[in-house]
Amino acid sequence: MKKDAKKEPLCNSIAGEGCGLKKVINIVGGKWKIMILCVIDNNETVRYGELSRSIAGITNTMLANSLKELEKDGLVERKMYNEMPVRVEYTLTDKARSLIPILLELKKWGEDNL
Amino acid sequence: MKKDAKKEPLCNSIAGEGCGLKKVINIVGGKWKIMILCVIDNNETVRYGELSRSIAGITNTMLANSLKELEKDGLVERKMYNEMPVRVEYTLTDKARSLIPILLELKKWGEDNL
Repeated sequence: MKKDAKKEPLCNSIAGEGCGLKKVINIVGGKWKIMILCVIDNNETVRYGELSRSIAGITNTMLANSLKELEKDGLVERKMYNEMPVRVEYTLTDKARSLIPILLELKKWGEDNL
Repeated sequence: MKKDAKKEPLCNSIAGEGCGLKKVINIVGGKWKIMILCVIDNNETVRYGELSRSIAGITNTMLANSLKELEKDGLVERKMYNEMPVRVEYTLTDKARSLIPILLELKKWGEDNL
């Protein structure tokens, strides 16, 4: 086996909770959350109904739960406007925006390799 | 909301099967597969038993199925040696190796942001 001169291993402690990669997988793993980030990223600001219509196959429970978790993890910001009917809009936080370029690289890799 | 001059959206068609990002999530999504890639990456060549011992909490069924899928998707190579007892070793393919730098960026992002 060829041995590369590696600067850094992918994970130092696989079982450890400290692995940054595991944390990322934990918060954006599964297909719905990445898709939700995609739709918000495409539109800058998205209303709940638009999200629901844009993501084929997602249930209301899954969408609502995913949005709550993304909000808790600081990736999505929820803004409620006191209008009638009530308007709720979602945007990406700066933290989420800093993740987008890496997701784009993953996307590019997927297009080239899968 | 500030409007960035974006070169490329994260996903053009969310529901479409053609999205490279969705393909990546499909093949390495879930925590086990990333962990398996981590362990193989750390050791260059790993025997089945080592993998099983290195990944806390994984069942034999999950490990065997994940390895089969990773092999089918061209990320892991399985080599069987005609010895007694039979020796089975796993290594990363070049395709998987080209994914590692992006996973390292994700890891770095996780360490900085989560």
